[in-house]
Amino acid sequence: MYSFKNDYAEGAHPRILKALSDTNLEQSEGYGCDEHSLAAAALIKERLGGDSDKVDVHFLCGGTQTNLTAISAFLRSHEAAVGTNMSHIFVHETGAVEATGHKVLTVPTTDGKLYPDGVQAVLDAHPGDEHMVKPRLVKISNSTEIGSVYTLKELESLSRFCGEKKLLLYADGARLGSALCAEGNDVTLADIRRLTDAFYIGGTKNGALLGEALVITNDALKEDFRYHIKQKGALMAKGRVVGIQFEELFRDDLFFDLARHANGLAQLIASALKKAGYSFLTDSPSNQIFPILPNSIISKLQKNWSFIVWSKIDESRSSIRLVTSWATKEEVVREFIKEFE
Amino acid sequence: MYSFKNDYAEGAHPRILKALSDTNLEQSEGYGCDEHSLAAAALIKERLGGDSDKVDVHFLCGGTQTNLTAISAFLRSHEAAVGTNMSHIFVHETGAVEATGHKVLTVPTTDGKLYPDGVQAVLDAHPGDEHMVKPRLVKISNSTEIGSVYTLKELESLSRFCGEKKLLLYADGARLGSALCAEGNDVTLADIRRLTDAFYIGGTKNGALLGEALVITNDALKEDFRYHIKQKGALMAKGRVVGIQFEELFRDDLFFDLARHANGLAQLIASALKKAGYSFLTDSPSNQIFPILPNSIISKLQKNWSFIVWSKIDESRSSIRLVTSWATKEEVVREFIKEFE
Amino acid sequence: MYSFKNDYAEGAHPRILKALSDTNLEQSEGYGCDEHSLAAAALIKERLGGDSDKVDVHFLCGGTQTNLTAISAFLRSHEAAVGTNMSHIFVHETGAVEATGHKVLTVPTTDGKLYPDGVQAVLDAHPGDEHMVKPRLVKISNSTEIGSVYTLKELESLSRFCGEKKLLLYADGARLGSALCAEGNDVTLADIRRLTDAFYIGGTKNGALLGEALVITNDALKEDFRYHIKQKGALMAKGRVVGIQFEELFRDDLFFDLARHANGLAQLIASALKKAGYSFLTDSPSNQIFPILPNSIISKLQKNWSFIVWSKIDESRSSIRLVTSWATKEEVVREFIKEFE
Amino acid sequence: MYSFKNDYAEGAHPRILKALSDTNLEQSEGYGCDEHSLAAAALIKERLGGDSDKVDVHFLCGGTQTNLTAISAFLRSHEAAVGTNMSHIFVHETGAVEATGHKVLTVPTTDGKLYPDGVQAVLDAHPGDEHMVKPRLVKISNSTEIGSVYTLKELESLSRFCGEKKLLLYADGARLGSALCAEGNDVTLADIRRLTDAFYIGGTKNGALLGEALVITNDALKEDFRYHIKQKGALMAKGRVVGIQFEELFRDDLFFDLARHANGLAQLIASALKKAGYSFLTDSPSNQIFPILPNSIISKLQKNWSFIVWSKIDESRSSIRLVTSWATKEEVVREFIKEFE
Repeated sequence: MYSFKNDYAEGAHPRILKALSDTNLEQSEGYGCDEHSLAAAALIKERLGGDSDKVDVHFLCGGTQTNLTAISAFLRSHEAAVGTNMSHIFVHETGAVEATGHKVLTVPTTDGKLYPDGVQAVLDAHPGDEHMVKPRLVKISNSTEIGSVYTLKELESLSRFCGEKKLLLYADGARLGSALCAEGNDVTLADIRRLTDAFYIGGTKNGALLGEALVITNDALKEDFRYHIKQKGALMAKGRVVGIQFEELFRDDLFFDLARHANGLAQLIASALKKAGYSFLTDSPSNQIFPILPNSIISKLQKNWSFIVWSKIDESRSSIRLVTSWATKEEVVREFIKEFE
Repeated sequence: MYSFKNDYAEGAHPRILKALSDTNLEQSEGYGCDEHSLAAAALIKERLGGDSDKVDVHFLCGGTQTNLTAISAFLRSHEAAVGTNMSHIFVHETGAVEATGHKVLTVPTTDGKLYPDGVQAVLDAHPGDEHMVKPRLVKISNSTEIGSVYTLKELESLSRFCGEKKLLLYADGARLGSALCAEGNDVTLADIRRLTDAFYIGGTKNGALLGEALVITNDALKEDFRYHIKQKGALMAKGRVVGIQFEELFRDDLFFDLARHANGLAQLIASALKKAGYSFLTDSPSNQIFPILPNSIISKLQKNWSFIVWSKIDESRSSIRLVTSWATKEEVVREFIKEFE
Repeated sequence: MYSFKNDYAEGAHPRILKALSDTNLEQSEGYGCDEHSLAAAALIKERLGGDSDKVDVHFLCGGTQTNLTAISAFLRSHEAAVGTNMSHIFVHETGAVEATGHKVLTVPTTDGKLYPDGVQAVLDAHPGDEHMVKPRLVKISNSTEIGSVYTLKELESLSRFCGEKKLLLYADGARLGSALCAEGNDVTLADIRRLTDAFYIGGTKNGALLGEALVITNDALKEDFRYHIKQKGALMAKGRVVGIQFEELFRDDLFFDLARHANGLAQLIASALKKAGYSFLTDSPSNQIFPILPNSIISKLQKNWSFIVWSKIDESRSSIRLVTSWATKEEVVREFIKEFE
Repeated sequence: MYSFKNDYAEGAHPRILKALSDTNLEQSEGYGCDEHSLAAAALIKERLGGDSDKVDVHFLCGGTQTNLTAISAFLRSHEAAVGTNMSHIFVHETGAVEATGHKVLTVPTTDGKLYPDGVQAVLDAHPGDEHMVKPRLVKISNSTEIGSVYTLKELESLSRFCGEKKLLLYADGARLGSALCAEGNDVTLADIRRLTDAFYIGGTKNGALLGEALVITNDALKEDFRYHIKQKGALMAKGRVVGIQFEELFRDDLFFDLARHANGLAQLIASALKKAGYSFLTDSPSNQIFPILPNSIISKLQKNWSFIVWSKIDESRSSIRLVTSWATKEEVVREFIKEFE
């Protein structure tokens, strides 16, 4: 049974394993102060454009950990995060942000994205009254939880809005590679850097064994951040393990190549499904697609393929989630598509 | 410059890298529900003796994370942990336990260990008065922060004491392998299982890239523990990464062999230093030793060797920390010893 | 300008001030262990029926404090509270519950009440998956935030549902007096005791200077609760200050008389407004009413009366909140009513 | 049995009760925005000297609540408070500060006071290493937990030290009145204002029913503080209850007169005991004294008097704590003294 359940079913891209192996017996500093972590940070900074001394790059183990560490470090206890009602921090992190003491406010979404008017509605409902939390950090995911991708215009609009309202903009980039390499995407890493106060570049879901690179661009958020990484249990003794992986991912275009590979295969499936007449939960150019299928077809597919049934559409149809990754093989995808021919 | 600074300067034992590589393209369930994690848990349970269904084994990324996740899951908010004043959770985890809302109470130590009379003194100072926290969990490290190792008699005595006082006993096993393989040690993994409510088996400092195996033996502490792992950011999407490593460590005696190797080389140095007339901060049969040396000797050593100057003894002498690992080579150790001949 | 803004605009009922004065120079134990607090607890227990030894009564300063202390003491960190989207803990306590580490899940409401099907929808969305919080405590307010009152049948239904689903039922009783004395109410204090795991009887909004009486009926929630009161800053050195007030309120029927007085005057206004042809946001038999009025009328009223404009209904109408209290005078109410004649 | 156990055994000074009574039926704004709270704040600001617009005054219910609200609002999560090992926040607040996520670091004391060299020792042990918390706020109590009082020189020295080290200085003033009115005291309220970043003026232990006035002098700590008061459950609906009391205490010299009265009677006892040849735990010119007495004498005293046995001195002697208050009567004190004649 082949799985399209997620993009973390396999290990790491072979080049990453090789890098870990090649460096294995080097002695290095602990806790992310090793040369590989420093080199990886430098390579990432290069990609971000601008003055590379102006951003801080930290490596953490996973996405939930990165979100909770960053958000709790950035906010005072009366300040809240704002996300969509599909937001990973709101739904799927077991209250990790709340466990650090912060409320997560939500904006309803159908396409997974957050727009200024949605955030404005939250601000309107919180008019500076100390009986309510103070919305302070806007959290987006790019690509979103349902695979959609922000356009440059959307990001600029949201960023400008946040600036005007003195809100921080934080981007969860668990699947940032996929977003940046999506067909039609007009956003670059340098744009993300320019338009957010902090964001992270996901490794786990794009070819690494584990690891996320958090980039802090707002000076006011940088101070003492390593204390927070340690306090939240995210400072690895062998920090090199993540550093080496990101060094390999950004040594050349591997990070982008892997994302492009995943996107391409997801879109191959999407095309076939469109051609077969099916619609989708939302338009997704990234590595997660959410086709709406008759339940009978879903049952049939489940005999040979593993995937998540996402949501009920009506009595006879549901949406499913299909995810591809750097490890997905084109021949397998073509075999899957045959189910619809 | 060769480093004796710690036991996490290198990557992983080659067999572990090979295991990661061999399994790399397998598709597996996420979040620690994969077959390798299950197999690793089963192998560990076998080593623990008794009825293997009676313990839960969870894999987390690192020590601080394991400590904070376990302690915060085990305690209600008015309950406190008790450790020595050298305890890692008290000194070197950036207030991680306090950040989850719990006070850490301390007992002074010179040998790194916690004894019933020390814990009793804490109980005496907290006589059930709601104006003070309630001591509830006793946290030990084995081997301790300064390399000493608990005897079976000591553990049994502390465990009995905790049982009588309704205290939970939790063992930080970042260097449990080293403790269990120390010359003269009479404690087994099965003993640890029998005598504690929970403990963890450290992988990071004994040959793994990362990862700790938390064992919960007390039924009352098991419920819903995975929620806490997720909430604290410790549930890895590719949980297999830790599972595969522990599977390899416990498939045969690799875990113990690596610890024995590290201990042997630390003791080789210790013997030479004793022979050369130097004393030690405390008696340590494990892979961390703390010789007391003249400052002039220390300066000379620092030209070729990297290590931590631990504490000032008097105007002319300091203690240093020398740590060996699975990766330390005997020839290097012999070269180091020559400095004292 | 007379205020109908809330039920805490004045001080305390004169009998309460007199009781404070009469006992003023007595020396008493601190921290709620004084004889007046004990007597007040005993008087409350009598009203609760059943075996009075089976409940614990604690006195705290205010409603938010009581909610946050109780909920954080009752829940483990992965467990969440469930309330309506109008719930005070969700909207108007500055994230107090989240600040103790717990998510608050919501159910949409129009009448302010929570019903089993709404809670079931939350349970359906949280099917025992450790990536999401675990709904564990159902929080209702009676009377609700918009003045409605639970019927016995509704409470029994919700209580039975919670029991079946292993959910705790907790009632915020900031205005419990008003609920119990509402026209048509068929619920007694003894019912509340029987049907909830814990609830509080509000003093601040029913004639006291300050103070709420928390009643814990579920044995499993009682242990060490005073530690939590102290830890959250809610254990008053002069605990007698609240004890004396509740002793006076429950020495005879003062508590109920005051609530009945407030209700009666709110309903007098409500009748007049109904007669004048106005509708209401919801049906409220308690001391808070929410008539829907033309904005022109509201502007006119605002010249002589102080009240809160609650919500916009349409372009020309809004709902307002009118609150009466033990201190409201009938002649003032009759004068207010004249505005609509 | 007359009690010298504490200074909160009685209710409030009669003038305070009268003020509550006189204002009882006024309608006022809730949550501390009433005219009495504003007037009280203005009166306190006048006493503080300097530009009264430069400080913020907030009224809270009790000491533990004020400490936890202030400290958690002032610190980021990796920052720690520093106090003596007798410090109320360290010993007697059930881990309230830790429950908000912050470690409390300690300095040993015998006289109850904190000096720069003690704080420096804590700084030396925390040399900017992210594996340890960052000491950030120095918390003193004046008078201290054992009745001693800071001199102006001591406060200036500590304040200068904190300024140099970028540490915040916060003073717990539960018994600030007693300190300021102590024989030999050379510190004024204006000095406290000038030398700290924030402090509170205790009402509960100096004649009020309840209430503390928190003064924030450091601009950087003022923003959004009312959100924190609300979030921690410390914002009273009837905030006037504390406002009216402080208005009365500071309308003239009542606050100081009450403290002077309490001090005078404690010192009367102290003189008699000195004359009778007894020594004291420490030198205390305030309303708490700690004489060292033979256990046989203590047993005899306990027949007629209630007080706390503080600490064991040796096999035959213990220290006891005797506390006087605004309500203590001179004739009772003279009767007590007769026990030693």
